[in-house]
Amino acid sequence: HLPLVMIAGPCALESREHALDVSGQLREIADRLGIGLIYKTSFDKANRTSLSSARGIGLENALPIFREIRETSGLPVLTDVHTAEQCAIAAQAVDVLQIPAFLCRQTDLLIAAAETGKPVNVKKGQFLAPWDMKNVVSKLTGAGNPNVMACERGVSFGYNTLVSDMRAIPIMRDIGCPIVFDATHSVQQPGGQGGTSGGQREFVPTLATAAVSIGVAAVFMETHPDPANAPSDGPNMVPLNEFESLVGRLMEFDALAKKRA
Amino acid sequence: HLPLVMIAGPCALESREHALDVSGQLREIADRLGIGLIYKTSFDKANRTSLSSARGIGLENALPIFREIRETSGLPVLTDVHTAEQCAIAAQAVDVLQIPAFLCRQTDLLIAAAETGKPVNVKKGQFLAPWDMKNVVSKLTGAGNPNVMACERGVSFGYNTLVSDMRAIPIMRDIGCPIVFDATHSVQQPGGQGGTSGGQREFVPTLATAAVSIGVAAVFMETHPDPANAPSDGPNMVPLNEFESLVGRLMEFDALAKKRA
Amino acid sequence: HLPLVMIAGPCALESREHALDVSGQLREIADRLGIGLIYKTSFDKANRTSLSSARGIGLENALPIFREIRETSGLPVLTDVHTAEQCAIAAQAVDVLQIPAFLCRQTDLLIAAAETGKPVNVKKGQFLAPWDMKNVVSKLTGAGNPNVMACERGVSFGYNTLVSDMRAIPIMRDIGCPIVFDATHSVQQPGGQGGTSGGQREFVPTLATAAVSIGVAAVFMETHPDPANAPSDGPNMVPLNEFESLVGRLMEFDALAKKRA
Amino acid sequence: HLPLVMIAGPCALESREHALDVSGQLREIADRLGIGLIYKTSFDKANRTSLSSARGIGLENALPIFREIRETSGLPVLTDVHTAEQCAIAAQAVDVLQIPAFLCRQTDLLIAAAETGKPVNVKKGQFLAPWDMKNVVSKLTGAGNPNVMACERGVSFGYNTLVSDMRAIPIMRDIGCPIVFDATHSVQQPGGQGGTSGGQREFVPTLATAAVSIGVAAVFMETHPDPANAPSDGPNMVPLNEFESLVGRLMEFDALAKKRA
Repeated sequence: HLPLVMIAGPCALESREHALDVSGQLREIADRLGIGLIYKTSFDKANRTSLSSARGIGLENALPIFREIRETSGLPVLTDVHTAEQCAIAAQAVDVLQIPAFLCRQTDLLIAAAETGKPVNVKKGQFLAPWDMKNVVSKLTGAGNPNVMACERGVSFGYNTLVSDMRAIPIMRDIGCPIVFDATHSVQQPGGQGGTSGGQREFVPTLATAAVSIGVAAVFMETHPDPANAPSDGPNMVPLNEFESLVGRLMEFDALAKKRA
Repeated sequence: HLPLVMIAGPCALESREHALDVSGQLREIADRLGIGLIYKTSFDKANRTSLSSARGIGLENALPIFREIRETSGLPVLTDVHTAEQCAIAAQAVDVLQIPAFLCRQTDLLIAAAETGKPVNVKKGQFLAPWDMKNVVSKLTGAGNPNVMACERGVSFGYNTLVSDMRAIPIMRDIGCPIVFDATHSVQQPGGQGGTSGGQREFVPTLATAAVSIGVAAVFMETHPDPANAPSDGPNMVPLNEFESLVGRLMEFDALAKKRA
Repeated sequence: HLPLVMIAGPCALESREHALDVSGQLREIADRLGIGLIYKTSFDKANRTSLSSARGIGLENALPIFREIRETSGLPVLTDVHTAEQCAIAAQAVDVLQIPAFLCRQTDLLIAAAETGKPVNVKKGQFLAPWDMKNVVSKLTGAGNPNVMACERGVSFGYNTLVSDMRAIPIMRDIGCPIVFDATHSVQQPGGQGGTSGGQREFVPTLATAAVSIGVAAVFMETHPDPANAPSDGPNMVPLNEFESLVGRLMEFDALAKKRA
Repeated sequence: HLPLVMIAGPCALESREHALDVSGQLREIADRLGIGLIYKTSFDKANRTSLSSARGIGLENALPIFREIRETSGLPVLTDVHTAEQCAIAAQAVDVLQIPAFLCRQTDLLIAAAETGKPVNVKKGQFLAPWDMKNVVSKLTGAGNPNVMACERGVSFGYNTLVSDMRAIPIMRDIGCPIVFDATHSVQQPGGQGGTSGGQREFVPTLATAAVSIGVAAVFMETHPDPANAPSDGPNMVPLNEFESLVGRLMEFDALAKKRA
């Protein structure tokens, strides 16, 4: 079992300067901790709660910044794609493509992502059972791409609430792909603030520790130097100055979980 | 309050002959009952459970058939769209565009649908609370289209199960748009048969009666001459030979519900 | 199919005077409407959210009042029992025993209630599936009492929320016993106000209409002259001055539902 | 933070010989591992799915066996109580009283258990939110007993399914009482086999590891020499010959969780 990897970064690509700053800091933290880290950044927030929410800088504007992040920080970059057309374009400048949870059943998007040959991290829909991901993963591997990660990010539980069913980790692992636990969106409260989603940042360590102790390949955790002023997902991002100690703690649980598993 | 309208037809556009046959029969039933009916047909099943499931004939092939259905049956036609690009194209040949539940938060799709000027029926995501639809509807009306219908089709309830919360009808009605109750997908069991979704056709009359008695503008109900051999949604479609008596019964409850409401 | 019966009254037996007053008014309403009505009253609130909530006057104090309600109003009386010992005692003075939802799996309580020979209305636990009620009803009928009603009152849906699955009505009807729909507790928000439960009185007509249109033997609906000052369940009780028109409306749907069902 | 304690034993008190045999083996395992262990045994299964299920030997018959278990094994004994009357009687012969989940809102039972002065382990109802346990715990402490443990055992999630929300652990810990995680009933499938409950024993290590890594005072885990032939909860009990290695593993996670928490 390979040691834990982090997928981390701010929710949105806010600007070139912001992205280079945060990716540089994350590279330093990863080096100090001795952990692999994939930089997560989004060029478009395509499914915001309301029309007036900020969208992002767009794919064309993001491509040169993606390249610059890779070059300056040396970190691999992951971004999420929303249409089949975006896949091949994004794949020119990033290392991992991510399929959003709401879109995990859209066959054309999955095939287009798979056909880029890049590793794909597909999030489990909030409306799916863990075993349903077998069909989702098969759409990707059936299109010729064996590098598929399945990501748990909570399941609908009543209204405006998600719950993390930890049984999903061994169930999806049995599908045969590495498991990512998204500790950021698992504590989201969808629509919980009326026009935007709320979140419970205080439970990120709880759920991340639980998932890592069960055994996962990676933890997805958004982090931001100033979450209160982030354009999206502020309530559930970990402040950057708390990131290093939290990840260090997760690494201890990861080492124990993989000692004889 | 206007009397009940039916949105009905087979799940998929199987062939020109099949579509003309079923739409012709539905027109005759609607005439006998004295009810308005919109013919529902899909050119693509874009989010099938598994890769090997049938997809459909595609938008380009469907356009002339949509036109022919309208001309021969005289019924307005509704179809569902899956990408922003499809909206303007489909709008050339149909009367109502429908946004699938999984895609109800995709801003670009909503705007493109709204901008066609056609009435839009947007399904509530299985992962949304009824009050969350306010933001979804606002994306459509904010793009300049006042003709928006909100459609209840069940909410995630544990794994592989949906439940119809009848409170959703008055809650969404308060948003200010006509309410459609989808009696077909509300009895779907997503992923319930492993590689395909299951369904409980036997509860269609139960849920449709309940919704109509509360007061809705339309009921969405897929029907097929031979559900057992339909390419999709067979387990939850109403056999065509039971359609007329069921709709007749719903009309009685509709008349009572709207008598003094 | 017999016409609809109402099970109605204030949540708690507040005092002799209050009970005689409300039962008298309900008798008059029932006579004007031409509907059967069972007077519901509780001598103990045995499972209040918090220790400081009012409990009630107790079984011994309630017995003579139960008798007086029957004599003065002529209405049959229903009360809920919480221990096996209470069953035979309560049965001396009431016409129907009710098993609370939390206690619907307590075998000794069910047997003791059944052995009184009185009709038993057993509420479906918030934690049970409709088909699970088969075993609950069998405990009662297996103890020799065929007069068992099964009552739907909502199922847990996330935290502090219930949802009414209308499929429960035909599913439980197939067990072979009359179905009661509890329109009051179905709109409860358990624990929703911290130290007490909240409620959404505004959805009582919605859910009651839906249930009656599907077809039920009885509707359970708490009513109070002044819900805002009731010791329990205030937020979900129907004001007494709205009761008659609501029940009159339900009777119209009941007549239609049973016309040819 | 005190090190992890186990609450373990077979679901039911099957016979004197069986209880002395299993408690003796558990004492030996606890000694080898260096862990505190409370022996769990039930004299009555008061809420079985169906009337024909085995009930148990009864409280009077169990009392001398409880005493003999304590004397021969030296282990403290926990048993669950179902009526207020049983509390004082059971308290003569056991060390901890347990309140079943279905009964966690029954005020009289809670008060009677609290008044024995024995420590009380109260299970969170499947229908409660974690924060609702504040009121439950207050009923016990308000009756003068500060020794209260709150136990997570899963929450209703759709039909016949429970889910373990790991956020419940820190939320209930903030109430101020030690937290027990019930790894056995959290994997129960209530009513999942028609006339009996099913279970998913394979997820016991997953959920127990997650809970311990978050930090709990105790894990509740039923174990049996031959689960396939146990009178109740067979599908979710851990075979006794796997118990030692599983608990040893949990102790490693417990030590890490409490290192600096």
